[in-house]
Amino acid sequence: MSMKRKVIRIGVLGCGSVGSSFIRALKKNRNLIRERTGIEFFVVKVCDRDRKKAKFFPQLYTSRDADVTNSPEIDIVVELIGGVEHAYEIVRTSIKNGKSVVTANKALISEKGMEIFRLAGQNGVHIGFEASVAGAIPVIKAIRESFVGNRISSMLGILNGTTNYILTSMSLYGTTFAQALVEAQRLGYAEANPALDVSGLDTAHKLSILSALAFGRQIYWRDIHVEGMEFIEAMDVAFTREFGYRMKLLAIARKKGQELDIRVHPTLLPATHPLSAVEGVYNAVYLESDLAGKSLLYGEGAGGTAATSAVISDVVDIGRKLSENNLPSRSGLYEDPRTVVVPMKEISSRYYFRFTALDKPGVLSRIAEILGNNGISIASVIQKEESPEKAVPVLMLTHTAKEDSVQKAVAAVNRLNVIRKPAVLIRLSE
Amino acid sequence: MSMKRKVIRIGVLGCGSVGSSFIRALKKNRNLIRERTGIEFFVVKVCDRDRKKAKFFPQLYTSRDADVTNSPEIDIVVELIGGVEHAYEIVRTSIKNGKSVVTANKALISEKGMEIFRLAGQNGVHIGFEASVAGAIPVIKAIRESFVGNRISSMLGILNGTTNYILTSMSLYGTTFAQALVEAQRLGYAEANPALDVSGLDTAHKLSILSALAFGRQIYWRDIHVEGMEFIEAMDVAFTREFGYRMKLLAIARKKGQELDIRVHPTLLPATHPLSAVEGVYNAVYLESDLAGKSLLYGEGAGGTAATSAVISDVVDIGRKLSENNLPSRSGLYEDPRTVVVPMKEISSRYYFRFTALDKPGVLSRIAEILGNNGISIASVIQKEESPEKAVPVLMLTHTAKEDSVQKAVAAVNRLNVIRKPAVLIRLSE
Repeated sequence: MSMKRKVIRIGVLGCGSVGSSFIRALKKNRNLIRERTGIEFFVVKVCDRDRKKAKFFPQLYTSRDADVTNSPEIDIVVELIGGVEHAYEIVRTSIKNGKSVVTANKALISEKGMEIFRLAGQNGVHIGFEASVAGAIPVIKAIRESFVGNRISSMLGILNGTTNYILTSMSLYGTTFAQALVEAQRLGYAEANPALDVSGLDTAHKLSILSALAFGRQIYWRDIHVEGMEFIEAMDVAFTREFGYRMKLLAIARKKGQELDIRVHPTLLPATHPLSAVEGVYNAVYLESDLAGKSLLYGEGAGGTAATSAVISDVVDIGRKLSENNLPSRSGLYEDPRTVVVPMKEISSRYYFRFTALDKPGVLSRIAEILGNNGISIASVIQKEESPEKAVPVLMLTHTAKEDSVQKAVAAVNRLNVIRKPAVLIRLSE
Repeated sequence: MSMKRKVIRIGVLGCGSVGSSFIRALKKNRNLIRERTGIEFFVVKVCDRDRKKAKFFPQLYTSRDADVTNSPEIDIVVELIGGVEHAYEIVRTSIKNGKSVVTANKALISEKGMEIFRLAGQNGVHIGFEASVAGAIPVIKAIRESFVGNRISSMLGILNGTTNYILTSMSLYGTTFAQALVEAQRLGYAEANPALDVSGLDTAHKLSILSALAFGRQIYWRDIHVEGMEFIEAMDVAFTREFGYRMKLLAIARKKGQELDIRVHPTLLPATHPLSAVEGVYNAVYLESDLAGKSLLYGEGAGGTAATSAVISDVVDIGRKLSENNLPSRSGLYEDPRTVVVPMKEISSRYYFRFTALDKPGVLSRIAEILGNNGISIASVIQKEESPEKAVPVLMLTHTAKEDSVQKAVAAVNRLNVIRKPAVLIRLSE
C-alpha cells in the first residue's frame, strides 16, 4: 500500500453537542484515521452564532458563516446547525463554492434532499448524510452500497430513541407515559419540548430518507401516515406484553410490486421479533430483501458521539474520494415514477383496541356485534370489572382485518352512548 | 444527477452454488442496479473445471482460467473457486493483468491477504472481499468505512452458521450434538465433512480477517487460540441455559492499550446479550467502540444468495470507482507493529466446568479444595445422583478466575483417581 500523505481541511458550522464532539473526536483519533486511510483530517474553522464558543477554539472560531462557506482553504463543510432554511442556505452556498458537504440534518435532507443532490451533481461535489438517520448505525451506507444488488421488500425501523426509551420503561417497569417522559428528560434523552419525537414526526422524517434510498421514491414526510404515541397508557403496554407483544413506535415501509405501504405508528411486535429486543434509547433497522434475506442493524441512535461516528464516516468517505480526484458518486437516490403509495385504508393488519365503556350488561356484545358486522373477528378480550357507575377499559386483540372496515367499526362503536372515550387502536405486525 | 451510461464487464471463476447464484442475481436485478448506480454490469465469461456447466452458459462458458484472467475485455474477476493455492494463482494473474478482483474466499484472504493487497496497490487495481466473512452482513464495509473514526475496543462474532445451528438445536430442543449435526447436514447447512466448522477453524479464518481490519494487526489464523465444540454435550447446554446463559461458538477480539485478546471457543453469554438472540444459521457481529458505542450487525451468514449480496456489493463498489477513473482505495488493512497478543494463560473469565467423577463421598469436597487452592471460587454447582458404581457429571459455574490457575486446577482434578473423564471447560463472557 502506498502511504501518500494527504490532508483534508474541514469547516464546521454549528458547535452544539454534536459539533464539539466531532471536533474533539477527530483530533483524538486523527492518527488512527491516518493509519487506516493515509489521509489527515483537520478542522480549520468553527462557526457558531454563540460568541462564547470562541474561548474553546481561539484559533478557529468565527461568527460569520461566510468564513466557512466561502473559504478557499476548506474542502468539506460539516453542517450541524439544524433547522431547514438557514442550513439550506449554507449548504447551497458551500456547494456552489465547490465544497463537499456532510450533514446530520434529517429535516434538511427530507425537505430539500433532492434539490441538494441535484446541485451537488452540477457542481461536482459530494454530499454525506449518514448521521441524519439512526446515529451511529450505518444504515444509509448499508442500503446504498451493501444492499445495492438487493430488491428490498420490507423495512421496519425503530428510529427515535426518546420514544423507544419511554415505551421500554412502560413495558419493563409499568411506568406511565408521563413518568417515563420526565425520566427521559432528566437523563437528557428527550427534549424539553418532546412533541417532534412523541408525535412520530421525527421518525417520519427519517423514514422519508430511508425509503427513498431503499425503494427509489422519495415520499415527502408530510405525505406519510403518522400516528404518535401520546395516547398510549400503561395498561395498553402491559396487556399486550402479557399476550407476547412488545410495543414500538415503528417506521414501516414495504414494497410489493409497485405498491409502497409506508407509515409510522405505534406497533405491536411478537416478543420473538429481533426488533422487540431493541430497548431503551437504542435504534435499529430490520430489512428483508431478495438476496440478503433478513438483516438487522442495531446501535446507538442519538447522542453526541454516536452522530459523530457517522459524521466522521462521511467525512472520511469524501476525503478518500477527494484525495483520489474522483468524480462524485451518485447519491443513491433515484426516481422510480411507477411506485404508488398504498392508501392507509387498504392495508390489512391485526389490531389491538382499547374501548372505554360504562360497565353495563350487554356492552361487550354490542361492541362485538359492530365488529362482526364489519368482518372483524376477535382473538382475545379482557374486560376489567369495576363499579357499575364508572367507565372501564375493554381490551381486545383481533385477527387480520382491513383498515377501512376497522375505521368504520371503531367510529360506530365510538357513537354508542355507553362509550365514554374514543377508542384506542394499535396495529400489530408479524 | 447525471445518468452516464457505463458498462462493467465481469469474468466469473468457479460456478458452484455462489457462482451460479451471482450470475442469476446480477441478471435479475441488472435494471435495479443501473437505476441506483448509473452503471450496467455484465458477466462476459464463466470458467469452471466441470464441463457440464457449459450447457447453462453456452455463450459464456470456458474451461480455461486464462480466458478470464488474461481477457482484455474483463474489468473485474470474481473468484469463487475456493481453496488457497489455485485461487491465489488466479488472483495474482488477474491483478498483474490490471483486473480488479472480488473474492468470497476466507481461506485465501486470511492466508494471502497482505500479499494480495500489496500486489493490487502496485498494479492500481481494487480488491473486494466482503463475502469472505459473515455472508450478507456488511461487516467488512462497516469496520473499514462506517467505523473508520472509531477506536474499536471489543468485537464478538457468531461467524459460523453450522455450529450456531447445532448449538441452537441443542439449546431449544435438547438434541445431542450428533443429532443436530445430522439435521444440519440434511438441511444443507453443514458439509459432509464438518470438521472445519465444528473445530472452530472456519471461525478463526474469519476472525483473522476482521481483527486485522478492526485492530490494525493481522494475526495469522494458526496463531489464534481455537477450541472447537466437538466435546459439548446436551447437558452442558441445558444446565447453563437454566442458569440464564446461551452457548455460542464465539470469535472474540478485544483490545486494551496495545494488548489484543483474541480467541475462538464455545462461550456462555447472558441470555440478555444481543448475541444470545442470534439463533439457527444466522451470523452476527457485536462491536464496542469509543464513538459509536455498542453496535450489532445481524444477518444471513451463508448460502448462495447471502454471499451473492456481498459479492454484488463489492462488484458495484469497484464498478463505481472504475467508472470514475479512480485510483484504488486502500484495503483498510494496516500494520500496527505495537500490538501484542495477550497470552491465553493471562486472560480472566468466569468458567463452566463439567467433571465426570465416581459418585463417592468426599468427591465434591476434593474438587472444591483443589479449586480453592488455585484461587477459584464456585458460584453454583449441581451434582447428579446416580448409582454408586457409575461416574456422574458434576456441573459448576465459577466466579472470575485466571486462565492459568484454572488450567492448573483442572489438570490437578483430572489426576484424581475418582475422575473418569477429562474435565470440560467453557468460558463465560459478559
